[in-house]
Amino acid sequence: MSALRFGTGILARHEALAAITEGEGCLTRTYLTAKHREAGELIADWMREAGMAAGFDAMGNLVGRYAGATADAPVLMTGSHMDTVVDAGKYDGSFGILSPIACVADLHARGKRLPHAIEVVAFGDEEGVRFGATLLGSRAMAGRFDPKALAATDKDGITLAQSIRDFGGDPDAIPDLKRDPAKVAAFVETHIEQGPVLLDEGLPLGLVTSIAGCTRVKAKVTGFAGHAGTVPMTLRKDALAAAAQMALAVEQHCAARADRLVGTVGKFAVDGGGAINVIPGSVSFTVDVRSGDDVERRLAAEALRADCEDIAESRGVALSWDPFFELQAAPCDPRLMTLLGECIARAGVKVRSLPSGAGHDAMEMARLVPAAMLFVRCGAGGVSHNPAETLDERDADIATAVLLDFLERFQPSGARR
Amino acid sequence: MSALRFGTGILARHEALAAITEGEGCLTRTYLTAKHREAGELIADWMREAGMAAGFDAMGNLVGRYAGATADAPVLMTGSHMDTVVDAGKYDGSFGILSPIACVADLHARGKRLPHAIEVVAFGDEEGVRFGATLLGSRAMAGRFDPKALAATDKDGITLAQSIRDFGGDPDAIPDLKRDPAKVAAFVETHIEQGPVLLDEGLPLGLVTSIAGCTRVKAKVTGFAGHAGTVPMTLRKDALAAAAQMALAVEQHCAARADRLVGTVGKFAVDGGGAINVIPGSVSFTVDVRSGDDVERRLAAEALRADCEDIAESRGVALSWDPFFELQAAPCDPRLMTLLGECIARAGVKVRSLPSGAGHDAMEMARLVPAAMLFVRCGAGGVSHNPAETLDERDADIATAVLLDFLERFQPSGARR
Repeated sequence: MSALRFGTGILARHEALAAITEGEGCLTRTYLTAKHREAGELIADWMREAGMAAGFDAMGNLVGRYAGATADAPVLMTGSHMDTVVDAGKYDGSFGILSPIACVADLHARGKRLPHAIEVVAFGDEEGVRFGATLLGSRAMAGRFDPKALAATDKDGITLAQSIRDFGGDPDAIPDLKRDPAKVAAFVETHIEQGPVLLDEGLPLGLVTSIAGCTRVKAKVTGFAGHAGTVPMTLRKDALAAAAQMALAVEQHCAARADRLVGTVGKFAVDGGGAINVIPGSVSFTVDVRSGDDVERRLAAEALRADCEDIAESRGVALSWDPFFELQAAPCDPRLMTLLGECIARAGVKVRSLPSGAGHDAMEMARLVPAAMLFVRCGAGGVSHNPAETLDERDADIATAVLLDFLERFQPSGARR
Repeated sequence: MSALRFGTGILARHEALAAITEGEGCLTRTYLTAKHREAGELIADWMREAGMAAGFDAMGNLVGRYAGATADAPVLMTGSHMDTVVDAGKYDGSFGILSPIACVADLHARGKRLPHAIEVVAFGDEEGVRFGATLLGSRAMAGRFDPKALAATDKDGITLAQSIRDFGGDPDAIPDLKRDPAKVAAFVETHIEQGPVLLDEGLPLGLVTSIAGCTRVKAKVTGFAGHAGTVPMTLRKDALAAAAQMALAVEQHCAARADRLVGTVGKFAVDGGGAINVIPGSVSFTVDVRSGDDVERRLAAEALRADCEDIAESRGVALSWDPFFELQAAPCDPRLMTLLGECIARAGVKVRSLPSGAGHDAMEMARLVPAAMLFVRCGAGGVSHNPAETLDERDADIATAVLLDFLERFQPSGARR
């Protein structure tokens, strides 16, 4: 197959970037490390080749800027993260950096300036591997960085503040990274889907409607432990059976609303490990419910709680239900979605709208400015956060072409909210 | 309340015996230790006081013998174990030793000899705490001791063979401990129920029909791990949901046959612990099915396997099902049961038949000679293997009176099989 306009080069760059790793024989690149710098410098070279000014900001985000037609042109921001999870795939984050660089390179080669500047950001931290706090880069740009995070430490006890200074940054300047929404017209992010929907439907692209909000619950069922041989079925208060019924209730409730909800019991274990000849006395599990629609998600969380309480009551076991984490959804901007949908359609691809169940930098940016996301199909069953992650170069190519079309057709004034 | 004929003294002896412990502030007494010897010597004193000859055998079982009316009288054996689990209750095992000693003491005080000798055995090991093999004492007397067990080691690396020698016993003489079924007319064991049935029904005594057999299975469900946010409900192969459905199928099948079966999922966990935001890829659990009726149990084990395989197939997950342990039931002898039931009824107690879901020395003895068991109610929800285990002195009293009645009415020839 001959080289594609964008896809072939972009995939080659993913390979080059994936070679920059702290991992032994695997890809792991965490925030504010030597490998972060090395990756950032390589990306900066590509940005400069594409006609951009590029450099690290005060917390290690790399920002490349392609000037607009006029000096005071508003900015269209795009980008994604350059950090990875441990033993990562090559495309998570990176595609959202490399695809817009390819677009800008194309504009630059044509000598084309747009009515808006383009900034491509390679966020330093999204995954939160090193300091346990996610989305640090985009949170700072959205003005939502919590200074308390500066005291967080990595596994060696080094604080985030110290690490920023060691990298050559300035923790005190983080508040200044907040973008002025009057000057930023929008944020758009391209990203692998990290799920199987597009693969399942045979579509290379997806139009993200919302980045899902999330409710997380820690639940514990307390029954009465007993001897597996001596306690008749009728006299049991089996914590495992009760919790199993609750896990199925979570599945059932969400499956009945599969177009709007996902719900997962991810941790689930008999407390203390259990024994083969003992009726479990207590079981702990977690529930994670997500939806692009906050009302839908909150109603579901309440319904699940009620379902589980009913099960507990009918079985005479106790239930503790602790909703310890909530994240609001970040709906994508309708006008940006319309434009992006038109670009997808013009590329000859059926417009498939879907929520993003995973968090992304666009989630934080959407708190500040109108935002949109373009998903690109990944292979291998949609697996991500895993070396088995794949991206087809034809899909990378068409996604980049659609992004370029979007960048060129975008009208700053029309996108303001 | 004034002292009861048997119950008060027996409960006082339980207290004295429970004071002989290796545990710090709790009762733990394991096989072939100094505390085993000390407990055995105290019991031997009580046996001798009751007119019995008493001594340790070649593997540390304590045997007390009350001679019959004639030198060649057959033997009616009774007894239970003097070892305990870690942090045990006071009554498990001990009651089956102390109640027949009280019966013999009563016969002795009346100068009464029976047409059969009575042997009260305090088995050295039933729980298997020290060497990991259970029922060692009764297994030897039933001629089913496996010499390979002599190589088993305790936590300090001392073999069972060495421990027997250190105790003053002789591992080479264990085969000689096998009783001649031509000379032993029967074995009868009194024991706390270790379950809640009698407590629930307000009855002090229970007539054991069978010591349940058991099938144990290790099962593993393998689905497909995925991101809790990005994989729609319709595209999941959630190992946890599948395994939860299987656990409920086990419960449901056994609950529908609650008079004949118990089934327990005792261990159950997402492999690797799981993560709140990951759809579980594999889950392991155990199944323990028991019944007094082997045919019933085997049919149930097959039905559970079929149910779980159906669930796996309908969900597109893989199931491994490893039935790694099987123990046959030991039915009690019908003629002994009839006699014991008559004795219970004569004591004014409704005859409640029930299987024993837990294993007991009578299970091994039943492989050799006709056997029967009398259960006595325990309190505290029926809990056992726990310091919370209780036995009411009135219940101890009536159980001992029934055992004495049984010992006096027993006709050796009539009980032979």
